[in-house]
Amino acid sequence: MKTLFAGMTVAAVLCAAAATAQERGPFAMQIDARQGIMAYRALQLGVLGGMAKGEVEYNAEAAQKAADNLLAAVTIDASMLWPKGSDHDADPSSEALAAIWAEGSDIGAKATAMSEAAVAMQAAAGKDLESLKTAMGTVGAACSGCHKAFRLPQN
Amino acid sequence: MKTLFAGMTVAAVLCAAAATAQERGPFAMQIDARQGIMAYRALQLGVLGGMAKGEVEYNAEAAQKAADNLLAAVTIDASMLWPKGSDHDADPSSEALAAIWAEGSDIGAKATAMSEAAVAMQAAAGKDLESLKTAMGTVGAACSGCHKAFRLPQN
Repeated sequence: MKTLFAGMTVAAVLCAAAATAQERGPFAMQIDARQGIMAYRALQLGVLGGMAKGEVEYNAEAAQKAADNLLAAVTIDASMLWPKGSDHDADPSSEALAAIWAEGSDIGAKATAMSEAAVAMQAAAGKDLESLKTAMGTVGAACSGCHKAFRLPQN
Repeated sequence: MKTLFAGMTVAAVLCAAAATAQERGPFAMQIDARQGIMAYRALQLGVLGGMAKGEVEYNAEAAQKAADNLLAAVTIDASMLWPKGSDHDADPSSEALAAIWAEGSDIGAKATAMSEAAVAMQAAAGKDLESLKTAMGTVGAACSGCHKAFRLPQN
């Protein structure tokens, strides 16, 4: 019995992290929605990036479709998705840093940079591979600019 | 040491379920994206439903915005999001039933019903509360029609 109890204690400690991750704050749906939209963008960038890197043959129609979709997912109204208090410290399922909402945060400028990059990609993707590659650099910079400043550091 | 090892074994067993849930199939990003878009729709329906049920005072501008957003999230290109083999049996993080992809599935008709309901809502929401309520009935029927047929039964 003593061994069983000891086992249960270790199990409780090791499972604590998992249990914590399942406890969701009041903004679970907002966090799910914005993460899903990020995943949607990533899927489109996967198509565009595959062509830019030469892993997939350039196809103007497929590139244009991915760029159209990217722009749709970047410009969809996200005003409900980022309530203050929906950061990683409040809900570990989010990787958003509280710095997003801090005094002097330039999150607005970073969002604008992403929108402009997506507009430029939409204009470039269906033209030719070189145009796509150039636009990809700007999109990548916009993504990583925001992630570096406002996303939990990745392993 | 013996106690520690016993403890580790119990921990391993108890944590197995959590570990399994974290093992994702090849379509993790597609599943995340579609679930996020569902959450986005649910947020908009929360606004519209709150007004329809009289929990929140009717506000034409807010209703119109939610309906516009709902339509955007319903009509965003989802052709990449539902690859065959991304069902619940293949990846437990999805609640999508394999019946979606089965011979004779009417998933296309159900998706069309949802699009038409969202178009009707967009035309109705900003008009007046009665129009919103009527449109809400059609939207709710489209949601539940698809969920009953193609989503894992909820507890």
